[in-house]
Amino acid sequence: MKNYEKVHVDKEPRTELHDKLNLTGAEISVNNLPAGAGIPFVHAHKNNEEIYIILSGNGTMTVDEETFDLSPLDFVRVSPAGKRQIKASENEPLEYICIQTKENSLGGYTQDDAIMIE
Amino acid sequence: MKNYEKVHVDKEPRTELHDKLNLTGAEISVNNLPAGAGIPFVHAHKNNEEIYIILSGNGTMTVDEETFDLSPLDFVRVSPAGKRQIKASENEPLEYICIQTKENSLGGYTQDDAIMIE
Repeated sequence: MKNYEKVHVDKEPRTELHDKLNLTGAEISVNNLPAGAGIPFVHAHKNNEEIYIILSGNGTMTVDEETFDLSPLDFVRVSPAGKRQIKASENEPLEYICIQTKENSLGGYTQDDAIMIE
Repeated sequence: MKNYEKVHVDKEPRTELHDKLNLTGAEISVNNLPAGAGIPFVHAHKNNEEIYIILSGNGTMTVDEETFDLSPLDFVRVSPAGKRQIKASENEPLEYICIQTKENSLGGYTQDDAIMIE
């Protein structure tokens, strides 16, 4: 079996990559909220840490009682317990990636996990 | 302690987010390779699955014996054992994100892990 999988993501409202990429350590979604739209519910997680990556547009995010602005190349980690909600600004769509990983699941990384080949 | 951390990433050659975001389930790096440049070594991993996300530019990636093209919004999973190397095209820089997560670490996700608040 080959050691990689590649997919190209088009501008869809939401693309979920877990099954398309055969991911085993994360779920990754790519999301496009129209201008003025927001995720219509507040949610938290049982075990998963989320990382939001803003690709284009602007918006706001609320975690627990705090609301803050989002712009391209903002990265936001939210702990499982954080009550979160995301919204596009009134004048442009918001394109973002959301990554779920299990809290405290990472062991070594980068130099501690790499094997140099040549 | 608050349930989130936010950072903005500037166009640097490489930004590592594990410590900046207090990540516990992933390491995430944001990388900019100049036109014609490539990572100067081939590497694999002991335990971590990697996901590469192309943000802008074009390039190529080699995994084991296979080389394929990269363009914006390509997502590539590489298994720990995959011998990988990435390179920008000759005529423009390549901007990409690399996520490391521990292989087989994810349990439930999305509906199976979410807690609906309101």
